[in-house]
Amino acid sequence: MRIRLVVAYVGTSYMGWQVQAERFAMQTIQGQLEHALGLLAAAPVRVHGSGRTDSGVHAEGQVAHCDFPEARFAKLKDMRHALNAMLPDDIRVFVAEPCAQTFHARFSAHAKTYRYQFWMERGFVPPRLKPYVWCCGPLDVARMREALPHLQGEHDFVCFANAGTKGMENTVRTLSELVLRETVVWQGCAPMLELFVTGSGFLKQMVRNMAGLLAEIGRNRVEPGAVPRLLQARSRKLLPAPTAPAAGLTLMQVSYPAGLS
Amino acid sequence: MRIRLVVAYVGTSYMGWQVQAERFAMQTIQGQLEHALGLLAAAPVRVHGSGRTDSGVHAEGQVAHCDFPEARFAKLKDMRHALNAMLPDDIRVFVAEPCAQTFHARFSAHAKTYRYQFWMERGFVPPRLKPYVWCCGPLDVARMREALPHLQGEHDFVCFANAGTKGMENTVRTLSELVLRETVVWQGCAPMLELFVTGSGFLKQMVRNMAGLLAEIGRNRVEPGAVPRLLQARSRKLLPAPTAPAAGLTLMQVSYPAGLS
Repeated sequence: MRIRLVVAYVGTSYMGWQVQAERFAMQTIQGQLEHALGLLAAAPVRVHGSGRTDSGVHAEGQVAHCDFPEARFAKLKDMRHALNAMLPDDIRVFVAEPCAQTFHARFSAHAKTYRYQFWMERGFVPPRLKPYVWCCGPLDVARMREALPHLQGEHDFVCFANAGTKGMENTVRTLSELVLRETVVWQGCAPMLELFVTGSGFLKQMVRNMAGLLAEIGRNRVEPGAVPRLLQARSRKLLPAPTAPAAGLTLMQVSYPAGLS
Repeated sequence: MRIRLVVAYVGTSYMGWQVQAERFAMQTIQGQLEHALGLLAAAPVRVHGSGRTDSGVHAEGQVAHCDFPEARFAKLKDMRHALNAMLPDDIRVFVAEPCAQTFHARFSAHAKTYRYQFWMERGFVPPRLKPYVWCCGPLDVARMREALPHLQGEHDFVCFANAGTKGMENTVRTLSELVLRETVVWQGCAPMLELFVTGSGFLKQMVRNMAGLLAEIGRNRVEPGAVPRLLQARSRKLLPAPTAPAAGLTLMQVSYPAGLS
């Protein structure tokens, strides 16, 4: 039977979502889930995520599915509880329940929302936020906001792709929503700046490259008006900004068509 | 010259604010600050906090003061930066600046605000919140709210004092504000419940004992109406609830008369 999983993790200690080499499997989220599910199933279980997250990236609502022996499932009183009892504290399963046999965490996904957190106060980061922010210093948020409409909609986002992306891949994606939100977390401190990006799909490191560019715009080093030219140039090499650090990024939510849940 | 410090810390790894034995000094917040300040001063520096926090308790705005050699201060470009460079990541100095010679972190304090976080979903805690909540399971928040007005105002709070409190101490305190706030942090999950308590002063473990009692009320094991009787009975032994865990508690803010900052 097919099981749908919703998983939260603090990515700091992991090499990312995906198992890449068997001997480092336990240093990935997928590997940890497969290990725990394998023990419950008494057989190997393959877990399919909605997509990979890079080393150090967090998730509040990563979605995955797996096929699990029905007889073993029937014996479990509470699969979520059983999984969480075996998983490390920094990986928590929020949902583990049977779903439609046609549900596929990756292919059924409609949209994803990522959050990128910029910490704008120099020299002081609240310790509880440290693992979840990029300590980038002061930014001109109004300038950054000017750039957002240029990124919205359907574009070839190849300029924001990770440097290793193969040339053959289709790099057209659609971003339906981009929001910059300032939140006061400390009186007398610069607010925390959160970028929320929702889209049909994302290239590898696309959000982190976008966050890197927005920070350069916020530092007055790049003009907001440079964004359309950059998109039109369709070249990874032209991006005038470094990739923003993984710690600031969190996969917030993956959406599916109603009915597939 | 007198220096005012505002300090944030994640208390998980520490034995609390106060140095109690010299050999465990570095396992306390006060000890860590005294060590860093001592290196900057090239002389021993004593740090006075607004009050102690227990082992495992966090702070977002603990206030302290110390006397620091003026000549050494003049040589520092940025004292906050210098301190943070020497302190561990889970202790951060947010303010380090000269203040009135009459300022005393403890004796000048007008009021303090604590927050206690209850996590009400059973079997799932978002990993990033785990160090900051008590995973207490479902609570009837409306019942808990009924108890709050009984706690507000001036009372002898001896029933909420830690068991080791000496009998001679004055245990009358004034709570000016008690608020219970529910925040949705996870879709489809019970909200997080935050208790904010502001008062002129607090007995040892008073907020944690209050949180423990409120949880028992929220579990229908104690009536909200039992609170006035409990306060009137003036006995630590009658409290029908265990002390809530340290992890849920954060010292949010210490207030001082205007002008003293």
